[in-house]
Amino acid sequence: MFPLLVATVLAAEDPLPSWKDTAPKKAIIAFVHKVTDEGSPDFVPQPERIATFDNDGTLWAEQPVYFQAFFIFDRVKALAADHPEWKEKEPFASVLKGDMKGVAAAGEKGAMELLAATHTGMTTEEFSKSVTDWIGTAKHPKTGRPYTEMVYQPMLELTAYLRAKGFKTFIVSGGGIEFMRPWTEKVYGIPPEQVVGSSGRLRFEMRGDKPALFELPEVNLIDDKEGKPVGIQTHIGRRPIAAFGNSDGDLQMLQWTMAGDGPRFALLVHHTDAEREWAYDRTSHIGKLDKALDEATAKGWTVVDMKADWSAIFPPAK
Amino acid sequence: MFPLLVATVLAAEDPLPSWKDTAPKKAIIAFVHKVTDEGSPDFVPQPERIATFDNDGTLWAEQPVYFQAFFIFDRVKALAADHPEWKEKEPFASVLKGDMKGVAAAGEKGAMELLAATHTGMTTEEFSKSVTDWIGTAKHPKTGRPYTEMVYQPMLELTAYLRAKGFKTFIVSGGGIEFMRPWTEKVYGIPPEQVVGSSGRLRFEMRGDKPALFELPEVNLIDDKEGKPVGIQTHIGRRPIAAFGNSDGDLQMLQWTMAGDGPRFALLVHHTDAEREWAYDRTSHIGKLDKALDEATAKGWTVVDMKADWSAIFPPAK
Repeated sequence: MFPLLVATVLAAEDPLPSWKDTAPKKAIIAFVHKVTDEGSPDFVPQPERIATFDNDGTLWAEQPVYFQAFFIFDRVKALAADHPEWKEKEPFASVLKGDMKGVAAAGEKGAMELLAATHTGMTTEEFSKSVTDWIGTAKHPKTGRPYTEMVYQPMLELTAYLRAKGFKTFIVSGGGIEFMRPWTEKVYGIPPEQVVGSSGRLRFEMRGDKPALFELPEVNLIDDKEGKPVGIQTHIGRRPIAAFGNSDGDLQMLQWTMAGDGPRFALLVHHTDAEREWAYDRTSHIGKLDKALDEATAKGWTVVDMKADWSAIFPPAK
Repeated sequence: MFPLLVATVLAAEDPLPSWKDTAPKKAIIAFVHKVTDEGSPDFVPQPERIATFDNDGTLWAEQPVYFQAFFIFDRVKALAADHPEWKEKEPFASVLKGDMKGVAAAGEKGAMELLAATHTGMTTEEFSKSVTDWIGTAKHPKTGRPYTEMVYQPMLELTAYLRAKGFKTFIVSGGGIEFMRPWTEKVYGIPPEQVVGSSGRLRFEMRGDKPALFELPEVNLIDDKEGKPVGIQTHIGRRPIAAFGNSDGDLQMLQWTMAGDGPRFALLVHHTDAEREWAYDRTSHIGKLDKALDEATAKGWTVVDMKADWSAIFPPAK
């Protein structure tokens, strides 16, 4: 084929094959053309094409609990041999017995103890290795698939499409920044330096003549709700022109994104497919979508109805 | 010319014309070839090619005081009309009288008051605008040149060379992150999301129905000394393979960089040229270079002797 014909055919190829030809797909493609077509009155220069994605419930699933919680439980079990006292001590005892009600009863204080025991008191490299080891072997309790295959195929296509159009894609998640970085490049094509998440404080010190960074049990940033625009400004330093989320935890990120000048895009993933995934929103204990859904409706933001708008949910099993 | 010949000629072009053919230039080029030539046993995949640069004294000058201090003094003068009490109140009174000894006498407490008065209590956008306005008009007291022309031509060439070879270049500076971001892309080709610096805490809040981020008078990160590896891990999430600095404030960044596996490069700019720039090191109140110089000598890191190794210091006046 002649070059022009090749270009035409390539341009006609569907960049979002797992999205049905419904309103969300049309809105995404219209926005991307509006900001990237040369000569468009709403053209945005490439460096300003910043797109931010929530992770839990937006790029990968989040039920029955955030996957990072499964990592914590598995780490407690793996570390239990070195901590015989955990058999008698809550919330560790409940984790070891697999008693999720007992874990929940320990509340936020218990959660912080579990987080401290599994995420701190080691170097960043040691923690990173513990994540890599876990995510390479752990399986989701319902589907039996690796967590890295519990990602949404339509969102993989969307992030790749945006990058092909000159966008820089960032994760902005309430999840732990160091929990995500070891695998986001391989799974999403998003490198560690484009991952924003909740973090603890770090301390630099010399171990003999070898420098190390230690994870401290002190909160640095909770990258959720009001923390998301803070994380965006701290890490990225400019306002996104497109933001993607699925819960009330993403509302402030979407508000911050939409309040800038020029063309803007905000999208919420609404989990409506109990058969292929999960169906939950206003009353869910994970990924509650209530205020953000009202605001999206009132302001005309794009809302994906997973059941109606996505022809596939997860990628084919490897 | 035939394509192969064009490629050969281009490859033969000097990527660092303001560097004399002395040891530092040879070391830089040898390192870059070692990590980027296909088939090199030390080849580093492109995503891992992270290079970090200190700013004050490494990318631009820092005498007679950090340029951010001039910004602070000018802002105090600009804001003085709204603060009649500053005429009687230190350290503001000394700033308004141009009494630098009086400012210095106010010590760190005074410095924090000046920082708070000029950098906080406003939105990130208002602060950014104050920087952009200042840097577009302010002139260096000795040279009369805009501060954005007080940058080192050899370092501009170096950052561009590294990027052309697939490196991602980051600033990691003790200076204020939001003080640098408004101009680093234009001046250095380094976008806001690749700037790491000292920062205050931010607060998200709604101004009516418009979201805003406020600069709070609380320290988030002092990105100097031990804070530099912390800033690198927090923002970038992987260890650089090359790092460039000029003072003891950069020592931990260089140590952290050199302690990784595989090929590594560390460079210190030594200010030795009192005629074309400034000469200072072990006893300087700004950019003190003492311990880091000893460690560079002991470990064979590259040290640039500005007078001997650079054929030009600043870019030609615009």
